[in-house]
Amino acid sequence: MKKLIKIDMSTLSIKEEQVPEKYAFMGGRWLTSSIIFDEVNPLCHPLGKGNKIVFAPGIVTGTAAPTSARISVGAKSPLTGTIKESNSGTKFSQKLARLGIKALVVEGAARDEIPYVLVIKKDSIKLIPEKELKMKGAYETVNILADKYGEDVGICCIGPAGEMKMAMAGICFNDLRNRASRYAGRGGLGAVMGSKGLKAIVVDDKGASGVEIKDKALFEQGRKKLISALQSHDITKPKGLLNTYGTAVLVNVVNNAGALPVKNFSSGRTDTAQNVSGERIFEETKKRTRKETYNHACSPGCIIQCSNTWYSKDGKEMVSCQEYESIWALGINCGIDDLDITGELIRICNELGIDTIEAGVTLGVAMEAGIADFGDGKKAIELLKEIGKGSPLGRILGQGAAFTGKAFGVLRVPVVKGQGMPAYEPRAAKGIGVTYATSTMGADHTSGYTIATEILSVGGKVDHLDPKGKVDLSKNFQITTAFLDATGYCLFIAFAVLDIPSGFEGVIETCNAVLGTSWTDKDVNEIGKEILKKEKEFNSSAGFTEADDRLPEFMKEEKLPPHESKWDISDKELNDFWNF
Amino acid sequence: MKKLIKIDMSTLSIKEEQVPEKYAFMGGRWLTSSIIFDEVNPLCHPLGKGNKIVFAPGIVTGTAAPTSARISVGAKSPLTGTIKESNSGTKFSQKLARLGIKALVVEGAARDEIPYVLVIKKDSIKLIPEKELKMKGAYETVNILADKYGEDVGICCIGPAGEMKMAMAGICFNDLRNRASRYAGRGGLGAVMGSKGLKAIVVDDKGASGVEIKDKALFEQGRKKLISALQSHDITKPKGLLNTYGTAVLVNVVNNAGALPVKNFSSGRTDTAQNVSGERIFEETKKRTRKETYNHACSPGCIIQCSNTWYSKDGKEMVSCQEYESIWALGINCGIDDLDITGELIRICNELGIDTIEAGVTLGVAMEAGIADFGDGKKAIELLKEIGKGSPLGRILGQGAAFTGKAFGVLRVPVVKGQGMPAYEPRAAKGIGVTYATSTMGADHTSGYTIATEILSVGGKVDHLDPKGKVDLSKNFQITTAFLDATGYCLFIAFAVLDIPSGFEGVIETCNAVLGTSWTDKDVNEIGKEILKKEKEFNSSAGFTEADDRLPEFMKEEKLPPHESKWDISDKELNDFWNF
Repeated sequence: MKKLIKIDMSTLSIKEEQVPEKYAFMGGRWLTSSIIFDEVNPLCHPLGKGNKIVFAPGIVTGTAAPTSARISVGAKSPLTGTIKESNSGTKFSQKLARLGIKALVVEGAARDEIPYVLVIKKDSIKLIPEKELKMKGAYETVNILADKYGEDVGICCIGPAGEMKMAMAGICFNDLRNRASRYAGRGGLGAVMGSKGLKAIVVDDKGASGVEIKDKALFEQGRKKLISALQSHDITKPKGLLNTYGTAVLVNVVNNAGALPVKNFSSGRTDTAQNVSGERIFEETKKRTRKETYNHACSPGCIIQCSNTWYSKDGKEMVSCQEYESIWALGINCGIDDLDITGELIRICNELGIDTIEAGVTLGVAMEAGIADFGDGKKAIELLKEIGKGSPLGRILGQGAAFTGKAFGVLRVPVVKGQGMPAYEPRAAKGIGVTYATSTMGADHTSGYTIATEILSVGGKVDHLDPKGKVDLSKNFQITTAFLDATGYCLFIAFAVLDIPSGFEGVIETCNAVLGTSWTDKDVNEIGKEILKKEKEFNSSAGFTEADDRLPEFMKEEKLPPHESKWDISDKELNDFWNF
Repeated sequence: MKKLIKIDMSTLSIKEEQVPEKYAFMGGRWLTSSIIFDEVNPLCHPLGKGNKIVFAPGIVTGTAAPTSARISVGAKSPLTGTIKESNSGTKFSQKLARLGIKALVVEGAARDEIPYVLVIKKDSIKLIPEKELKMKGAYETVNILADKYGEDVGICCIGPAGEMKMAMAGICFNDLRNRASRYAGRGGLGAVMGSKGLKAIVVDDKGASGVEIKDKALFEQGRKKLISALQSHDITKPKGLLNTYGTAVLVNVVNNAGALPVKNFSSGRTDTAQNVSGERIFEETKKRTRKETYNHACSPGCIIQCSNTWYSKDGKEMVSCQEYESIWALGINCGIDDLDITGELIRICNELGIDTIEAGVTLGVAMEAGIADFGDGKKAIELLKEIGKGSPLGRILGQGAAFTGKAFGVLRVPVVKGQGMPAYEPRAAKGIGVTYATSTMGADHTSGYTIATEILSVGGKVDHLDPKGKVDLSKNFQITTAFLDATGYCLFIAFAVLDIPSGFEGVIETCNAVLGTSWTDKDVNEIGKEILKKEKEFNSSAGFTEADDRLPEFMKEEKLPPHESKWDISDKELNDFWNF
């Protein structure tokens, strides 16, 4: 029987409960959002004892389904004030699933100043005070815990930013080589974990019985369909675009489309984008390591394998991973076009336990305020280090882009619902603008990645500059994504399954096989809608209205080069998003 | 014919318009809120060119009606995001009215870095660049402008905090002795003025024709009724409580009631309150100046005369005025019980151009965060000076209590809609809690001063601890206050007119006499409702909902000594407030 584990940090007590009937088929975001919806008062202080933080593997996580080791983390967000789900690929998730744990629910508030580590094994779950981990960076924390509990364990932790309850603090997971590098980064969930006094979670699945599969034949059938799709699509196949160039393959593509936000969203294109492109990473890595290197998996069972490693000039490992979003945020958005600098900035973010996107958008706003010049990598490094020190300036920056903009009276602040925008200019890619505006999570590309169709021509082809039809495009993406976020599959399978229908059949079949359900396309669409509506209702009770589903004023007023386009989807059209 | 003056700071152009019919009977808050409602997009950035700042004298301001020299200032607030009206008593207001100016509407945004001064005379209105005023304190600014334009002019200005667009920046007016001491303090309106590049406004009414009175006999009748009421009520009469002890007479009274917030709202009573009481100010002033001194008027025509002056031990003037709210916020709320320190803190606030209430509530939160110890006056002075420097710490504090709480992860933050609570504990005075929660302005005692009845037994007598009937009490106060804020009369006339019905008749009669209307009690009640509903509708369009009409979580959870009471008016009852 599957379990919910409830950890109350006020009393340091741990309860094991059978999964209630209503949650039986749920996983990932479906489950985290449902528990938050059911149990958290939408008006609670996000850092108070009333908030809860929920960790849930997806429906197929822990099975042999490919690329399905996502962990969803949910809570009321201290960054946005909305409900939040952020997810990451990591062995941590598989191990939880294999132990029969459907979700961890961490409640209450820190009782004292000592950070605790939750250690989960097959036959025991314990909270262990670990004074020496206090204010330790994420790299060191993972190293200490891997030394103590074994190389093979799944580890989740926060860095100093989470302990300081900063709204850009993310939650870190170990990758296959125990690098503190995989993040449920967005929405300040690290601060929620910090407010509860929980520094880390260790999961050891030794002796676990694994995930029960109700229909093994169907599972094999579905799994094969999905593998076949992933292995044949240009984006996801071995030595395909992601495996070769990583997510940073997007740099040149999005730049060519004129949708790459440059210097705090003041242009959609830059001449120097290629300096920090995926192609450049591939070439430079070959030069520095003296061999042709393809990317690696962030988590077991991933066959896309898009994670890169960046090496210093003398061939030593410097950081993993230079993701597209991170390079953009900390690089292009700050006028920085040097991969050694973006690598160092990413390394510091990982060390402090902060979201690279929010950090980069915040630096862009700080540069707009004149705190540093655009392009000044040295100063950008210093500013991130201020966050780690918790100096007054660090306290401002650590609260994110909206907060920093307010502190310095900046008007050009690219946020929705308090969350910094990711690496796609809504004025040049109107569909993603609809996603930013309407997402229940604040500005979040992963909640409805219309870029796939708008710019990559996956699942169809549309003009990214044209506002027409973009509300529906985003709606379809957001509904499907909400379901995908429930399955445990990585969002990147979407590239293949949008173009190859049998791949999506495989997704549904593997879920049906695990759960013993007989969901159709239509059913999973309804599941997606249910998730979105639940999240929306939570947000409404928290005080959010149509007025919050808006892009910042400056995007309606300023034309974006090179296409000289403004944000031109009307408020009325945005309001129509929720008619489903 | 009365005029609206529209000043566009983007183009440095000035337009004079006849007052539209719909505004003909309006004044003060009624007019500022109506213009903001009609002309400002509720979703605009408060510091952007879309916001407007409106200055409007009241209906009877500029006549011989007693205690009626209030100026209303309105805008969308950068502190709360709501509509905002903040008012002050000052000769500035009378002079505008006597020039036939119904309102100044300042639009657009600063064109460059040069601060401008708007100089209004009978036959000319000019915008004059004044480089040397840049980042000048309010005292110096008023001195320079009084030297240049004459001792008798009305002056309005902002200090460095407004120029730095800080959300606790207020708008300063000169008192009768040209002290930069009278403030439309709340809601960050100084930052709005700063964002438009307007440093000051000078009004010279030489040669003005004055305010037309349609029915002089009625005016005299109403005026006499009001004067008689004010001169006979114990609180407002000459050598009465306000004239003798100033507003600080409340310190002992509210402390005795157990409703005086101590050390960031952790108790309702303190043993040392008397050290900073109005009685102590009176005695100490007698000692230091070697004469018995009664208070002075902040503005011409005031017969209550509640403004005090604080002197150093050697008898030199130090600051005016030590108001109850300021002493409480910067003193008692910070554990400080020394009038020389509160005097210095108030002086610094006046110099920087910041709201003493927001500043004190912010210091209380900073002390809760451990930035300073409660009671450490020296450190409190240093912290205010950081605001003036615009250092990172100053940028945090300058944005107010909610912002400071967020920066440092503090959970006990006494704000509603982002505005710091004034000097009455809602857990011990439930009516004022309803006002804080439901006011269209954020936590604001002046928008529905139930304390008059709850604690001073003016206009009736109720148990301040009892939640029953408090929604209606606040509703009645808020409706009446909205009307009073339209008249130009000081809110303090309410003490007299609540107890002496002929006084309130005098208020209505003087308005009718000026306007040629024949309003009844019922009519002015409807006017009050109209104002509130308009403000509420603006806020709803700006995204505010019932979820924002709430007191902070900690007040529902923590018992307040000495009465050990919690906030216990239900959300449902609060929602009922708006059923009128």
